[in-house]
Amino acid sequence: MLPLLRINRHLFACSSLPLSSSPPRKVQPFCKSLIRRLTPRSGAMAAKISTAAGSPELLFRQLFEKESSTYTYLLADVGHPEKPALLVDPVDRTVDRDLSLVKDLGLKLIYAMNTHVHADHITGTGLIKSLMPCVESVISRASNAKADLLVEHGDKIYFGNLFLEVRATPGHTLGCVTYVTGDGPDQPRPRMAFTGDTLLIRGCGRTDFQGGSSHKLYQSVHSQIFTLPKDTLLYPAHDYKGFTVSTVGEEMLYNPRLSKDEETFKSIMESLNLAYPKMMDVAVPSNMVCGMQDLPAN
Amino acid sequence: MLPLLRINRHLFACSSLPLSSSPPRKVQPFCKSLIRRLTPRSGAMAAKISTAAGSPELLFRQLFEKESSTYTYLLADVGHPEKPALLVDPVDRTVDRDLSLVKDLGLKLIYAMNTHVHADHITGTGLIKSLMPCVESVISRASNAKADLLVEHGDKIYFGNLFLEVRATPGHTLGCVTYVTGDGPDQPRPRMAFTGDTLLIRGCGRTDFQGGSSHKLYQSVHSQIFTLPKDTLLYPAHDYKGFTVSTVGEEMLYNPRLSKDEETFKSIMESLNLAYPKMMDVAVPSNMVCGMQDLPAN
Repeated sequence: MLPLLRINRHLFACSSLPLSSSPPRKVQPFCKSLIRRLTPRSGAMAAKISTAAGSPELLFRQLFEKESSTYTYLLADVGHPEKPALLVDPVDRTVDRDLSLVKDLGLKLIYAMNTHVHADHITGTGLIKSLMPCVESVISRASNAKADLLVEHGDKIYFGNLFLEVRATPGHTLGCVTYVTGDGPDQPRPRMAFTGDTLLIRGCGRTDFQGGSSHKLYQSVHSQIFTLPKDTLLYPAHDYKGFTVSTVGEEMLYNPRLSKDEETFKSIMESLNLAYPKMMDVAVPSNMVCGMQDLPAN
Repeated sequence: MLPLLRINRHLFACSSLPLSSSPPRKVQPFCKSLIRRLTPRSGAMAAKISTAAGSPELLFRQLFEKESSTYTYLLADVGHPEKPALLVDPVDRTVDRDLSLVKDLGLKLIYAMNTHVHADHITGTGLIKSLMPCVESVISRASNAKADLLVEHGDKIYFGNLFLEVRATPGHTLGCVTYVTGDGPDQPRPRMAFTGDTLLIRGCGRTDFQGGSSHKLYQSVHSQIFTLPKDTLLYPAHDYKGFTVSTVGEEMLYNPRLSKDEETFKSIMESLNLAYPKMMDVAVPSNMVCGMQDLPAN
């Protein structure tokens, strides 16, 4: 068991429910004709959060964890009476900060999501669930990791009257997904894509471990991200140079790797000669159980 | 003379003009009945940039310098044919990154501005001017620093059909200002305030040197920032915890210093016992000449 970070536990209790140890909810396999609409598990709350009247209004915050240069994203529908919220790619070290912000803003956190099984930091989802058992963890089924909700390409993840669309973007890892804000008259414009390590600003994630494939990453970016409107805002899981956001149009033109043809891209990726990630042996086993360090490894 | 950072000079030349060594432009003293409308010095360009038709459209980027935890902000009117742009609080170490971004986005950088004379890093304005002599440096007259344009409370700084309003917010230093996006039907909503070190997210700048005064800082925040609409987005010069933005409403409620009464605030500030800033003896003399390290000290 890995050491638990110091957290102000009294601040964040959302109910008196014990920490759930039930297996992930079983959902129907993805079918092209059926876009799954995911809502929180608890019946009453799910109905309330997904069907209430009122114009959706996105609250959005980008948060940075300096040691691993990781971005965490907070999204909420503050037009909804419950103000349902989700976190994308929370980090264990900054859970305290993130949940304080959720509390200050009067939000109801319902999902703690990951774009993939990270190799460079421990996800905050486990700590968040231990402090707020009503929050559900989310990751892709293809990641083979444990979570409350295992999502697949085409799923829609609702928070209030807003939603994120799941796009499978394997390549950095087999289970990488990109979460994209919804397409529809009530959804935010321009669209926003949370690309994880698939597409970084003027870069991309490495493809030399965890089922990585430069062919798959190239195809993922070109078929699932570069096909979005050019003004789509791109929010990656990391940035090492201090950029906070880019756009599809900008990366299509200026990404020094992904603006090239596939053969050139593969040759760039093959010659990177990157060091073994120092956190990998700690982070990956922990993140396979969504940071729930006290669960059995299998 | 301080060492010059390595910069790709060929990338950024904007004209063949030599680096100007003329004194700052003399402007009329501030008068309440006359809001000065500042436009670039070069006659033809100024007229073109300030009067062209077309709906203003803000492009906004937040950029981070990790060593000093400084935020630099890029704003441009991309609805204007010239795409005039400005940088707030650029850092010398990241000038290369910032100017590459300006170039990628096809912007015409016209101003490199500071909220105050920084004590923790060297401003990028000097380097920017040495690479792009058409860019004008901007700082407050009250700072007693050198710059091309010395601004005062109430001035409007135009870039295309958008503008920033100057609000004097002394307290961290005597010359601190907050730049606020314009109030008007064509200006961005919600408004945005670039607060420098006057107001930080859940904090504020120290008041124990450079003409600092906790009384003045408290009055500045309460009269010039907390009077803005509550949804005004607050963008500070630094953040040390990974927050990127806050709002007036949020800081009025949750700022642990400035949500208190003035006496409590003063007592908090008096008991901080902060260390002497390690960069101060290098940064302040350089920043008094807007980072133009090769100009004579007076």
